[in-house]
Amino acid sequence: MQPLPSPEPITSPANPRVKRLVRLRERRERDESGLFLIEGYRELRRALAGEVEVVELYCCPALYLGENELGLVEAAAGAGTEVVALAETPFRKASYRDRPEGLLAVARQFPTGLERLHPGPDPLLLVVEAIEKPGNLGTMLRTAEAAGAEAVVVCDPATDPFNPNVVRASLGTLFSVPLFVGDTPGAIARLRELGIRTVATTPSASMPHWEADLTGPLAVLVGSEQYGLSDAWLAAADRKVVIPMPGSVDSLNAAMAAGIVLFEAVRQRAVAPG
Amino acid sequence: MQPLPSPEPITSPANPRVKRLVRLRERRERDESGLFLIEGYRELRRALAGEVEVVELYCCPALYLGENELGLVEAAAGAGTEVVALAETPFRKASYRDRPEGLLAVARQFPTGLERLHPGPDPLLLVVEAIEKPGNLGTMLRTAEAAGAEAVVVCDPATDPFNPNVVRASLGTLFSVPLFVGDTPGAIARLRELGIRTVATTPSASMPHWEADLTGPLAVLVGSEQYGLSDAWLAAADRKVVIPMPGSVDSLNAAMAAGIVLFEAVRQRAVAPG
Repeated sequence: MQPLPSPEPITSPANPRVKRLVRLRERRERDESGLFLIEGYRELRRALAGEVEVVELYCCPALYLGENELGLVEAAAGAGTEVVALAETPFRKASYRDRPEGLLAVARQFPTGLERLHPGPDPLLLVVEAIEKPGNLGTMLRTAEAAGAEAVVVCDPATDPFNPNVVRASLGTLFSVPLFVGDTPGAIARLRELGIRTVATTPSASMPHWEADLTGPLAVLVGSEQYGLSDAWLAAADRKVVIPMPGSVDSLNAAMAAGIVLFEAVRQRAVAPG
Repeated sequence: MQPLPSPEPITSPANPRVKRLVRLRERRERDESGLFLIEGYRELRRALAGEVEVVELYCCPALYLGENELGLVEAAAGAGTEVVALAETPFRKASYRDRPEGLLAVARQFPTGLERLHPGPDPLLLVVEAIEKPGNLGTMLRTAEAAGAEAVVVCDPATDPFNPNVVRASLGTLFSVPLFVGDTPGAIARLRELGIRTVATTPSASMPHWEADLTGPLAVLVGSEQYGLSDAWLAAADRKVVIPMPGSVDSLNAAMAAGIVLFEAVRQRAVAPG
């Protein structure tokens, strides 16, 4: 086993590895390399538990918040990750956080093709379309995980799911909720093939979300922040529901809408007879 | 009526007015002056509709996104606001947004004392405690407005409600949902006095939130991101509920938890007999 971290930390912020860490914030570099960044203890813990291939782990013990970091670094090394020490200056340069916690990893992007979606019986899925803000997509992943969703399907992604801000806002649930990415026609076809009912959340519906049957094999559909769901999804959905808002209708963001309908499904599934 | 905007725009980023706009991002400057910043069309529209006293309005027509800005500037001027034109360079310096929309105002902080809380019959309130992140507080305001909440009470604020990021994340609902700020003992006393039942959301409860009666005069209580509700609130609450999470329990953020319970209250109030 190699020493943890390596005995000679990188001290120069101009080191090529540090420069590459900075470049991996850009989609182009991620697409070309097939790699992405994972920063933070909680995120990295979920990545290792989720069997993400963590290629390199950069650590800066001076920035650790607690005492659990060392065990995590050892676990990563044991799983084959190259561990590299960074002095504080280059680490702060490489980090994309305001308050870095001393752990920043490079991992391999994992396959997300819809043909890999094989849910169990009576699955609850979240399907989102064209979400633009990485923070919203991350919050949706996090909320879907809390609701016990079996998978999240991202249609026509407007933000790269491997964007560091998705990883961050998801708290690493990107690695614990199975994620699938595809175009809208492909997702419609795949869910039909699997016999999963689709319930679209849209302000144009008249049925309150709580009146729809949200038990059984179900996908909750939520559209983009700006435009909602596409006509293709609205036409294909088995049911269209609206979240009734006694207040003003532009006040609910897309992630919140997803959470409200997912947790109504949690309620119905818990109180359903049998 | 004065010309809109003034004929001689400020062109220097070193102008004292521009410097003061930058300083108003800091709590100290806000506390000392009793003023705060409102940036953006939607936010400013809600402020004017909500009878916030907008003291100064800085505008940069080159940055306007649409054609409605002029009417809003005219409405502000008609309500007594001083309108000042800024050239693009000083505007970009004064703006706290990545993509400024050409409207940035200075407004007077409004009173938020709990003694002013006088809800109507059967009110729905959101009470939050020690929220740290301005973005979360803003999202909570926005969600409370969507749910038709009559007021939001902020106990022991860890973030200043007049922080520009609260204004921004709230989309200006800070000006449409009545906001009250106080310490926790004061809020407990005031809600008791008003005969409003309190339902605390806490992972330590065993009753699912949907089993509690959320009709009638009700305050939903949500605690801080890190620590949840204080012992004082947990002891004082009429009922304690948990949001059952089939997935992992650290995956729901405080704003999402507030939204889920508020919209369960919306559901119960809609389906309740009578």
